[in-house]
Amino acid sequence: MFETPIIPRVSETDGAGHINNVFVPIWFEAGRREIFRILTPSLKFDDWHVALVNMNVDYLGQIYFDQDCLVKTWVDKIGTKSFGLYEEIWQGDRHCASGTVAYVYMDYAEGRAEPVPDNVRTMLRAHMKEE
Amino acid sequence: MFETPIIPRVSETDGAGHINNVFVPIWFEAGRREIFRILTPSLKFDDWHVALVNMNVDYLGQIYFDQDCLVKTWVDKIGTKSFGLYEEIWQGDRHCASGTVAYVYMDYAEGRAEPVPDNVRTMLRAHMKEE
Amino acid sequence: MFETPIIPRVSETDGAGHINNVFVPIWFEAGRREIFRILTPSLKFDDWHVALVNMNVDYLGQIYFDQDCLVKTWVDKIGTKSFGLYEEIWQGDRHCASGTVAYVYMDYAEGRAEPVPDNVRTMLRAHMKEE
Amino acid sequence: MFETPIIPRVSETDGAGHINNVFVPIWFEAGRREIFRILTPSLKFDDWHVALVNMNVDYLGQIYFDQDCLVKTWVDKIGTKSFGLYEEIWQGDRHCASGTVAYVYMDYAEGRAEPVPDNVRTMLRAHMKEE
Repeated sequence: MFETPIIPRVSETDGAGHINNVFVPIWFEAGRREIFRILTPSLKFDDWHVALVNMNVDYLGQIYFDQDCLVKTWVDKIGTKSFGLYEEIWQGDRHCASGTVAYVYMDYAEGRAEPVPDNVRTMLRAHMKEE
Repeated sequence: MFETPIIPRVSETDGAGHINNVFVPIWFEAGRREIFRILTPSLKFDDWHVALVNMNVDYLGQIYFDQDCLVKTWVDKIGTKSFGLYEEIWQGDRHCASGTVAYVYMDYAEGRAEPVPDNVRTMLRAHMKEE
Repeated sequence: MFETPIIPRVSETDGAGHINNVFVPIWFEAGRREIFRILTPSLKFDDWHVALVNMNVDYLGQIYFDQDCLVKTWVDKIGTKSFGLYEEIWQGDRHCASGTVAYVYMDYAEGRAEPVPDNVRTMLRAHMKEE
Repeated sequence: MFETPIIPRVSETDGAGHINNVFVPIWFEAGRREIFRILTPSLKFDDWHVALVNMNVDYLGQIYFDQDCLVKTWVDKIGTKSFGLYEEIWQGDRHCASGTVAYVYMDYAEGRAEPVPDNVRTMLRAHMKEE
C-alpha cells in the first residue's frame, strides 16, 4: 500500500467552504505516482502504458482546508490486459472518500490493449489489498 | 436536457497529449450549472443545498485539445432526499465519456439531509432522461 | 481582439466565496486559444512554438460565481523572437483583472528561440491593441 | 523562509510534455500556507484577511513531471495596509521560476483595507528575505 500526504490548497476549496469534490479524483491520481512508476520506471510520457476506463468515487465526509490529508492506494484486481486500484482519503481519523479506478494496459503506438507484462504483474501484486 | 459547450484549455491536457482524465469530472460539474440554479436560484453559496455522495465515470474515448466539446446533462433519478444525474461528453460525433452523480439534498445549517422540495422536484422532473 | 466567454465553475470558487485567484491565469490562457492557432494552425502539441517567460496579473475586483465573464485578448508587442499579449477579464460592466504575458517563439527540437516567422507576425499584428 | 515540497501530478502536465505554466501560481499559493496561518491562525475562511492585488511570475526553465520540486517563500515587503512575498520554485539544482505577490490586508466585513496588525507584522518580519 502506498501512502501519499496531501496538504490542501486554498485553490482546492470552494464557495461552500470545503475541498471541492473535483479535487478528490485529483488527489487520488496524485496517490498513484508509485503505481505509474511501476508501469513506466522513467515516468516519461513517451513510454506511458495506461488508459483509464472507469472511475468511481464514494464521498463519505467533507474534507476541510485546515488539516493535512493522506491518500492510501492499493492494487485491487489484476486482469489479463487491465488492473484496478482501490484508494482512500483520510483526514485525521476521518475516512472522507473511497474510490476505484480501472486501467487498461496499452500499447499507445499500436493504439490497443495488450497483456500486462509479467514483471509489472509481479510488482503490482506486492501492493494488493488483503481481504 | 442541458447542453454546455466546453472549449478545451491547454492547462487541461497532459503529457500523454490528451485531455487529462481529472478534467472530465470538472467538465461534468460545469454541465450542472443550470441544475444548481434550480436548487439555488441565486447561485449563492450561503443558500447551497446539495452534497455529492457518489460519482461514476466511464471513459469511452480520448478527448483532444483541438476540437470543441459538448456536455449533455439529464436528471436520472429523483428520490425522497436525493437525486441522480446522468451526463455525457461528446467531441464532434464521438461519445467520449459518460458519468453519473448522486446528490443528497441538504440543510447545511442543520447538517442533515432533508426531502427535496416539491417545486425543485417538479423542475428536475422536466429534465429527466426518457427511456 | 479576441473575446472568449467564460462561465465560472463551482470548482473555480474558493472558501472565501469568490473565484480563486489562480483561475485568473487559467482563464487568461483559455483566452489565447486563437493566438495559439495562429502559431500552430493544427493546435497539435508536436508543432508547438511558444514558451512563456513572464506573466503579470493585476487583480482589480472580486469575480463571483453567479455571472458569466468575458476574457478580452490583444497582442501588445511583437519583438524579433518574442511577443507579448495584454488581456482583461470583465464580469458585466466590471473590469476585474488585467494581465500581460511574454512568450518566446521556440524551435523545441533545437531547444532555442528563433525569429517569429513573417506570416505569424502579420497575423499577430492584426490583433494589436490600439493606443 | 518557508519550504514546501511539491510532488508533480500527471494532471499538472500538459501536451507539450512539461508542467503547465498555470500550475506555477498554484504551487506558489500552496507555498503560502504558513503565511496564511500567520494571518488566520485557525485557517478558517470566515476569518480570512487578505486580498491579492498583483502577481508576477518569471518562468526561468521547464519543470518536469519526473522529479520532486521545492517552493521557497519569503516575505519581501511590509507596508501599512499591504505586504509582498517573493517565491522560488526549484527542481533539484535548477531554479525554474520566481514570483512575487502583493496582498492587501482586508476587513472583509467592512469591505476595505486596514492596517496590518502589529503582531502579524512582527511574525511576517521574521520571514523576510535578507539582502
